[in-house]
Amino acid sequence: MTTTPATRSEHDLLGDRDVPQSAYYGVHTLRAVENFPITGTPIAHYPDLIRALAEIKMAAARTNAELGLLSSERMEAIVAACRDVQGGKLHDHFVVDVIQGGAGTSTNMNANEVIANRALEILGHQRGEYRYLHPNEHVNMSQSTNDVYPSALKLATYHSIFRLVEAMAYLRAAFQRKAVEFRDVLKMGRTQLQDAVPMTLGQEFSTYAVMLAEDEERLKEAALLIREINLGATAIGTGITAHPDYAPLVCRHLAEISGVPVVTAPNLIEATQDCGSFVQLSGVLKRVAVKLSKVCNDLRLLSSGPRAGLGEINLPPRQAGSSIMPGKVNPVIPEVVNQIAFEVIGNDMTVTFAAEAGQLQLNAFEPIIAHSLFKSITHLRQGCLVLADRCVDGITANHEHLAASVRDSIGIVTALNPIIGYANATEVAAEAHRSGKGVAEVVLARGLMTAEALTEALRPETLTQPTLSTLAS
Amino acid sequence: MTTTPATRSEHDLLGDRDVPQSAYYGVHTLRAVENFPITGTPIAHYPDLIRALAEIKMAAARTNAELGLLSSERMEAIVAACRDVQGGKLHDHFVVDVIQGGAGTSTNMNANEVIANRALEILGHQRGEYRYLHPNEHVNMSQSTNDVYPSALKLATYHSIFRLVEAMAYLRAAFQRKAVEFRDVLKMGRTQLQDAVPMTLGQEFSTYAVMLAEDEERLKEAALLIREINLGATAIGTGITAHPDYAPLVCRHLAEISGVPVVTAPNLIEATQDCGSFVQLSGVLKRVAVKLSKVCNDLRLLSSGPRAGLGEINLPPRQAGSSIMPGKVNPVIPEVVNQIAFEVIGNDMTVTFAAEAGQLQLNAFEPIIAHSLFKSITHLRQGCLVLADRCVDGITANHEHLAASVRDSIGIVTALNPIIGYANATEVAAEAHRSGKGVAEVVLARGLMTAEALTEALRPETLTQPTLSTLAS
Amino acid sequence: MTTTPATRSEHDLLGDRDVPQSAYYGVHTLRAVENFPITGTPIAHYPDLIRALAEIKMAAARTNAELGLLSSERMEAIVAACRDVQGGKLHDHFVVDVIQGGAGTSTNMNANEVIANRALEILGHQRGEYRYLHPNEHVNMSQSTNDVYPSALKLATYHSIFRLVEAMAYLRAAFQRKAVEFRDVLKMGRTQLQDAVPMTLGQEFSTYAVMLAEDEERLKEAALLIREINLGATAIGTGITAHPDYAPLVCRHLAEISGVPVVTAPNLIEATQDCGSFVQLSGVLKRVAVKLSKVCNDLRLLSSGPRAGLGEINLPPRQAGSSIMPGKVNPVIPEVVNQIAFEVIGNDMTVTFAAEAGQLQLNAFEPIIAHSLFKSITHLRQGCLVLADRCVDGITANHEHLAASVRDSIGIVTALNPIIGYANATEVAAEAHRSGKGVAEVVLARGLMTAEALTEALRPETLTQPTLSTLAS
Amino acid sequence: MTTTPATRSEHDLLGDRDVPQSAYYGVHTLRAVENFPITGTPIAHYPDLIRALAEIKMAAARTNAELGLLSSERMEAIVAACRDVQGGKLHDHFVVDVIQGGAGTSTNMNANEVIANRALEILGHQRGEYRYLHPNEHVNMSQSTNDVYPSALKLATYHSIFRLVEAMAYLRAAFQRKAVEFRDVLKMGRTQLQDAVPMTLGQEFSTYAVMLAEDEERLKEAALLIREINLGATAIGTGITAHPDYAPLVCRHLAEISGVPVVTAPNLIEATQDCGSFVQLSGVLKRVAVKLSKVCNDLRLLSSGPRAGLGEINLPPRQAGSSIMPGKVNPVIPEVVNQIAFEVIGNDMTVTFAAEAGQLQLNAFEPIIAHSLFKSITHLRQGCLVLADRCVDGITANHEHLAASVRDSIGIVTALNPIIGYANATEVAAEAHRSGKGVAEVVLARGLMTAEALTEALRPETLTQPTLSTLAS
Repeated sequence: MTTTPATRSEHDLLGDRDVPQSAYYGVHTLRAVENFPITGTPIAHYPDLIRALAEIKMAAARTNAELGLLSSERMEAIVAACRDVQGGKLHDHFVVDVIQGGAGTSTNMNANEVIANRALEILGHQRGEYRYLHPNEHVNMSQSTNDVYPSALKLATYHSIFRLVEAMAYLRAAFQRKAVEFRDVLKMGRTQLQDAVPMTLGQEFSTYAVMLAEDEERLKEAALLIREINLGATAIGTGITAHPDYAPLVCRHLAEISGVPVVTAPNLIEATQDCGSFVQLSGVLKRVAVKLSKVCNDLRLLSSGPRAGLGEINLPPRQAGSSIMPGKVNPVIPEVVNQIAFEVIGNDMTVTFAAEAGQLQLNAFEPIIAHSLFKSITHLRQGCLVLADRCVDGITANHEHLAASVRDSIGIVTALNPIIGYANATEVAAEAHRSGKGVAEVVLARGLMTAEALTEALRPETLTQPTLSTLAS
Repeated sequence: MTTTPATRSEHDLLGDRDVPQSAYYGVHTLRAVENFPITGTPIAHYPDLIRALAEIKMAAARTNAELGLLSSERMEAIVAACRDVQGGKLHDHFVVDVIQGGAGTSTNMNANEVIANRALEILGHQRGEYRYLHPNEHVNMSQSTNDVYPSALKLATYHSIFRLVEAMAYLRAAFQRKAVEFRDVLKMGRTQLQDAVPMTLGQEFSTYAVMLAEDEERLKEAALLIREINLGATAIGTGITAHPDYAPLVCRHLAEISGVPVVTAPNLIEATQDCGSFVQLSGVLKRVAVKLSKVCNDLRLLSSGPRAGLGEINLPPRQAGSSIMPGKVNPVIPEVVNQIAFEVIGNDMTVTFAAEAGQLQLNAFEPIIAHSLFKSITHLRQGCLVLADRCVDGITANHEHLAASVRDSIGIVTALNPIIGYANATEVAAEAHRSGKGVAEVVLARGLMTAEALTEALRPETLTQPTLSTLAS
Repeated sequence: MTTTPATRSEHDLLGDRDVPQSAYYGVHTLRAVENFPITGTPIAHYPDLIRALAEIKMAAARTNAELGLLSSERMEAIVAACRDVQGGKLHDHFVVDVIQGGAGTSTNMNANEVIANRALEILGHQRGEYRYLHPNEHVNMSQSTNDVYPSALKLATYHSIFRLVEAMAYLRAAFQRKAVEFRDVLKMGRTQLQDAVPMTLGQEFSTYAVMLAEDEERLKEAALLIREINLGATAIGTGITAHPDYAPLVCRHLAEISGVPVVTAPNLIEATQDCGSFVQLSGVLKRVAVKLSKVCNDLRLLSSGPRAGLGEINLPPRQAGSSIMPGKVNPVIPEVVNQIAFEVIGNDMTVTFAAEAGQLQLNAFEPIIAHSLFKSITHLRQGCLVLADRCVDGITANHEHLAASVRDSIGIVTALNPIIGYANATEVAAEAHRSGKGVAEVVLARGLMTAEALTEALRPETLTQPTLSTLAS
Repeated sequence: MTTTPATRSEHDLLGDRDVPQSAYYGVHTLRAVENFPITGTPIAHYPDLIRALAEIKMAAARTNAELGLLSSERMEAIVAACRDVQGGKLHDHFVVDVIQGGAGTSTNMNANEVIANRALEILGHQRGEYRYLHPNEHVNMSQSTNDVYPSALKLATYHSIFRLVEAMAYLRAAFQRKAVEFRDVLKMGRTQLQDAVPMTLGQEFSTYAVMLAEDEERLKEAALLIREINLGATAIGTGITAHPDYAPLVCRHLAEISGVPVVTAPNLIEATQDCGSFVQLSGVLKRVAVKLSKVCNDLRLLSSGPRAGLGEINLPPRQAGSSIMPGKVNPVIPEVVNQIAFEVIGNDMTVTFAAEAGQLQLNAFEPIIAHSLFKSITHLRQGCLVLADRCVDGITANHEHLAASVRDSIGIVTALNPIIGYANATEVAAEAHRSGKGVAEVVLARGLMTAEALTEALRPETLTQPTLSTLAS
């Protein structure tokens, strides 16, 4: 009776090492795991990245076969192995830490080794029998980490951007429904936290929908830059060792396999060293975060109370807010989105630092850029979904309170400016402020307008949109 | 004999104040100067902003006259006063600090007062005789700080973005000239600061030109967002007190007066509270800074030496570098550009904070956004011009040293991979490293290639672009 | 009749240049002015820095004379010239841009040249007759930019930190006075913007005073690190060309001249390349900014209204708030302090970037660190003074409104927890919320407490500090 | 035969919910898990935090019993349950997401519920039978999230800071060993990447040790602030519902239980809303990151090559560097530490934003502050250990190359300044630069010094420390 040994021996430039026989990864991955015990989170945490690696390796294998560089038997085995990875079957073997040195080499080698060993099995060999099919010679053929890794990041990011855009559209729709629901609810607008002039609560909510719509467009623009890849660049962009037809061919295959309209960068040397599209994307994600945070600040402010706050809207209660204060409920959903936004802003700083630190023909710090972007995108997406489902959808308005706040306000005097003049309006405002009286009361008492004219001037429609002025000067 | 009094008395809601008779500004400006003694730098430091304010006030006056709200006499006087401001004649009277509270109200009032007093003079009145023409009633008619100020920032920014783009194009041309000059100079490319594979110095410099070209495009895209203004929004975007035709008309006038293709935002309430286009622009400026800084890091690294550094290129000497080390010259021009980049990155953080802090219907912190953006744009522009004129134009190559570095390198063995195979190449590299010998010497000694084939494989053209591989697997 | 020529010729390693005869600076400064046309702001904008340079040059001259390296005639002349600079007489000649390449060499040379030329005059020579007294040989003797410049920054920063601490103490006193004034004014405390439990307005204001007091301590700690200088390091910290006794002696002289308890760093090589004390200081300044901004956010929130806001306190009106809304007054002073805070946070990012970018034996980017720190310190100082004088001092409380907010609150039920139990308290809270009734009314109606016990339990003293609980479990 | 049901029903203010019978957590935790599906990482990821919560609950139970508020039976059960948590037995039940809304309430409730249910078991009851021992009434007695949560963060952070300090000391020792090993290895120092003057490689490495030592001190200072807790504050710091003796007693118990010298903040209202000590700590962590990154930049630069770089030192190879370039090895360990540094700098920005966003009596954003700090501290620690073990320990020097670089340098002429004068030295430098000759050769040819004097002046001891100068002026 024979037993399978628990390990196999593999070799690299540092010597021999035993690898668990059960592992699809090999010696390079093992070294990387030992070198980078930083976060405890493996790259498999980002399935989009693993899938993108598989799609690139598949496109490369097909291209190499087409160019007569790779036998069709090996190509078929590699493609089949990539399909397994693409389908999520081997994620447990993508074990390198998300924070790693080496410009992504360890991630690329992890992919090469897993795919090679799976392909070996498919071909009827043992894992580790690299003389039949080699991680570097065959799986990585015509490639370098320096073109595979950034291209994989871009592919993965492209996918995830659009999932974020979907979540933003979902949140936008929730705000838009509230804009319709509250379209006739009059309230006081505020500038610099001071009472300004009236508007509708529907107008207020519609601005949040508009903000999101604009940001969706910005993300789509950023995606156009992200889809520009540098496959064919090999080591530094000069394409050394690559077939002249490789770059255009592999791009075509990758577009077909991934469904992403990737294009080859016009200058591969520049594309290999430049992180501009990541910086741009991170900047746009920061913009999304800034706006979402502002919206959540508003929601928390408008729902402050219940008695000693603005109390204009009610957020749906989602959990008990205090272990000591009976009945207290807090705006926990906007609060978690605020915190995601703060994280995204910090991530942008990390991306900025890493991008600036690139030197000469390569940026060695793309792994932390990838880690930061993936976190920002996935957390923002979760934030949008949670905000829509667990907060916005359940918001209600305190109608009476809002109506009273307009009726009692001094700010409505602004609407009378064009009729009674700025000087009279100022005196009315001053008296109202001093006496505590309402503006309408003061205007009528002073005989500045008739009751009818006043009613007309203070109609909601008049207060919340441009109207014909009546005083010329 | 009568003498002109040294001061005149003006009135606002806080009471009476004496204003110097020589001042075109009035009591509101005076209060602001007293309230904000922060930096000592007046808003006149940004002439683009002053000019933009004048152009907006001019467009508003014409629109108001056209709508029958402002007499043509007053309109003419206001327009003439705006021309003076536009032409730079009254900059000394724009005295409010660049860092100010109040969401820009003080800047707007400074403009209203200067224009009103100049218009009064034109009409034959004394400064301060506001009963004939009033800063608020007439110069500010149909307007609010909340639409005038952000629109002025956008107009001013638009102008200055394009001046930055010009400076970038100027720098790009300098890099491009060097790319041509150095197109045949072979050198070692480096990844992760380790010798990689050959390239030309011309290829290296051309990447800097490409980077700049891409950033110019990003800035132009950001400018498309910046040109979207909110004139007609008045206080909070509802357009209260504004004539329904005001918004489209004033936009048309402003486009004509300023030459900037401004458009009115589709949702004025959103546009009045949102700082998204500033955040986007700041993000792109940060991207420009990150890349310029990377380029300057490279220039400093490549010119390190003269004897114990990389010593590949020489920057033109611009000043003595040391008071203690005779003959030392330092890369002062790239160093100053690095520092501008660090400032711009910091400014982006300031913009991010200020944008996030906006509340409800207005962002009160636009003055610091403006200050940050103006600094970033003008300093980057100066940096590009200085880098082109005082550094890039004078760069020379150390030809012999570069040639030797390729000849002596181990990295050229990569080019032989497709011919002698990865395994042989690795052994050659190992022997070369161990013995200190050259790659060619080892290859010939091992009989792996003929001298002719080797010469062919190591031709510069072969080393620096994709070539037909010869080994299939 | 002879006329003085308008220029004199000076020489450096790049050749000859004409310098205006009226200039105290020389050819090195001239080159720097031409090389760095970045901000338009000369280093004279920071008088503390100019003074510090003069004090260091004075200390060096005395030390050199004491060590027998410099004639006493030259020493006397240099010391006299330094006195003029220290006294502010020659600031117009410190013309190098605040953003400059060269690790501060241009600033140091600007000082050497101005002092040399002034000393030459004192000795009866013409400016530019450096054979009698030379900027490098004599004024800069035993020094290098690399020890002079960081030491000058530290000296200058040390002075300015303490002026900031004074301004913070001034603001703290203003908050403390309000804490006393409002010590009996009961109000609702809030957590997460939701009504929590009662406190006094005096307690609220006293926290601002406490925060400031803590930050003053942190700044003083940071100052202890800042006073560590590296004079005697010369070029890279090895002290090459410096007399072995120079470092301790010059430190003693400098302490005496400047009144700052400077100490020599224990490891001069480390001290010459390290920017840790600047990063630490910038981090503490950021902390100050974060807290000041939080305080200003609170002040703006508490004074929101006048009718549709929290309306708990009134900030003194400082200027008209709107050109369109009659009577509107805005919290402009807190707003300007918020913006200073955002600037300081951005400056910290700039300092962080510049510090990280240091390489090997020197950080070439200290000028932008200096620029950022000086801005942060001076603007924060102005912000504190303005906030104290123009805002805090005039704050008043809306007593009735505050009293009502506690009386009508549900949150006071928390105080009854230990008496009626959490379960009863929850039911009381629920009924109050549902019915709009007051907590006291519900408690009495349910017969949970006697009127006397209730009155006792709701006394301000009971509500705002720990008390003996009465339920055990 | 009876079977245990799979779920139990629990109740909160939102109604009834089924909780898995196997869960130690309860309904509040369940709600939180549903509300915050953000990162997928549960708070158990930070064992220091879970342990700190257990220690606080234990201290509170003892105090409450001592004050006669809690029966000794319940106290004993709570204490026993806390011991289990402290020992790591129940970590699987701490399931709330690390990014969460609600100011930490969910984390506190997760702890209350797990401890209550474990205590119920100990008392012989079923999980969920809260009438015998209640999460809020008993486990959370005299507490609020608002004092428990920040105190737990501080306790946890305190522990982890000192583990980081240990790792830094470990790295420092590695640098110090190299400083000794290389103490006689002469090399050229560089400023602004240009050759400056000689130093020893040992001096260079000793600066890294000194930097770390200083940062260890800064961290210990920050820990002094962190140990200040606010237990006894309850909801907002007024101590409502808490016994007057509770605060001092619980602090004493906690110090004893945790071994951390915690102290109670002097002003509990301030301490409850202020995040200053977190901001300070984060600033110091950023300082550590900035310096570590600078050190790693230096290591990568000094080891650049092997042939076309500075090539002064060799880092031990840790993994193959390229899938395409045979024999290439990269500085992967310093690279991963650089990336950790960039992450920490980004985390500091997140902390800054979150701290600034605190409002009135509480900062609701402490969870993201906690998440950021824990990541920074643990990743920095791993980075230090990896850098010591896998990089610094194996560094070797290229002795010959270094010796040649000094011998051939122009910079050594600086050492002759005091002997031959600055003017002569400049001419020597110029000729050496022009001709490619060595400085010694030129000096001797010009007869400026005797061979003996020259040898003396260029001894390593003379070149690398202050020496007696010989020219006075």
